[in-house]
Amino acid sequence: MSGSGTLRGPVLYLALVHAPVRNRRGEEIAAAVTNLDLHDLARLACTYDLPACYVVTPLEDQQELIHRLIHHWLYGIGSRLHPDRERALRRLRVRAALQEVVSDVERECGRAPFLWATSARRSGTDVEPAEARLILETTSRPGVMVLGTGWGLAERVWRLCHGTLRPVEGRGDYNHLSVRCAAAILVDRFFRESASPPL
Amino acid sequence: MSGSGTLRGPVLYLALVHAPVRNRRGEEIAAAVTNLDLHDLARLACTYDLPACYVVTPLEDQQELIHRLIHHWLYGIGSRLHPDRERALRRLRVRAALQEVVSDVERECGRAPFLWATSARRSGTDVEPAEARLILETTSRPGVMVLGTGWGLAERVWRLCHGTLRPVEGRGDYNHLSVRCAAAILVDRFFRESASPPL
Repeated sequence: MSGSGTLRGPVLYLALVHAPVRNRRGEEIAAAVTNLDLHDLARLACTYDLPACYVVTPLEDQQELIHRLIHHWLYGIGSRLHPDRERALRRLRVRAALQEVVSDVERECGRAPFLWATSARRSGTDVEPAEARLILETTSRPGVMVLGTGWGLAERVWRLCHGTLRPVEGRGDYNHLSVRCAAAILVDRFFRESASPPL
Repeated sequence: MSGSGTLRGPVLYLALVHAPVRNRRGEEIAAAVTNLDLHDLARLACTYDLPACYVVTPLEDQQELIHRLIHHWLYGIGSRLHPDRERALRRLRVRAALQEVVSDVERECGRAPFLWATSARRSGTDVEPAEARLILETTSRPGVMVLGTGWGLAERVWRLCHGTLRPVEGRGDYNHLSVRCAAAILVDRFFRESASPPL
């Protein structure tokens, strides 16, 4: 364990992808936005001081919905009732495609980001979140943790990513955490754990 | 870090308390149940093989609502569309008060449980989740991680608990994670981290 205290680390962004993702039959779809996903991931980003959580959807009505939600919490009555929520939701950024996230981060950080795909299933090449952190530190690149809604990221999104994170495995064969809980655990492991086991 | 592989540990239950909790002014209230809390915590319990997640509310209409929700996923159309969800929601148990949870766990395990309160704020006596695990292992007692909705557990609930878990602290002063994300991180740390720092 890394213990408590200040957690250092490279710059990490979140991207919650709603399209293209898979449905239960493995077909490509655009998933609808879930209100609580936005709140939970914005609060997670704020807790771990991630510069932004991108919400990716090409659907204009969904983009409009997210902008209205953000406006409510940043400028409407929500900002007065819940100033803590305002502080978190300020980190949300809406984009139509993951490629726009890449350009955005590259512009902001001056270096192209390393994209880490996430999944509920193991792949042969996935790495622990702490190893991913070490790779970003070693290469001085920002990172984007790419999370899928629906039944997970579509193949086309995987091909845009440079690596995959080892899925959260608990105690047993059940691997159906919500994207909210999985993201929280992965971000915590990313910053908190050591990249190699103690001697 | 403890690395991957099989995570062993003592028996741990979750209890999501809706009353008595505090509102934003610190007054005691009964909070309404949030549908996604139940799904997320049931899936978390299933992932880490916790025997049950208790949903605590004395409000009969809320209990009825939760029973209808569980019935939909266990016996209704939900069970056919989402067998994975059925497997998780089977771990939910509705009780009117935390004292009933204590009796229930004692009956099931043959030993009185150790109750760990959770909070977004530090107390002088809180322990890391992995230290809490060690205490349960050493004393051979089951544990209950007690989570509050609203603005956190009421004073009366704190007095029923035997210890408090150190809050999730990220990188900075923001401590407003959702109960869903905080529970996920605490359970992961409970089973995965070492109880003492490496030499």
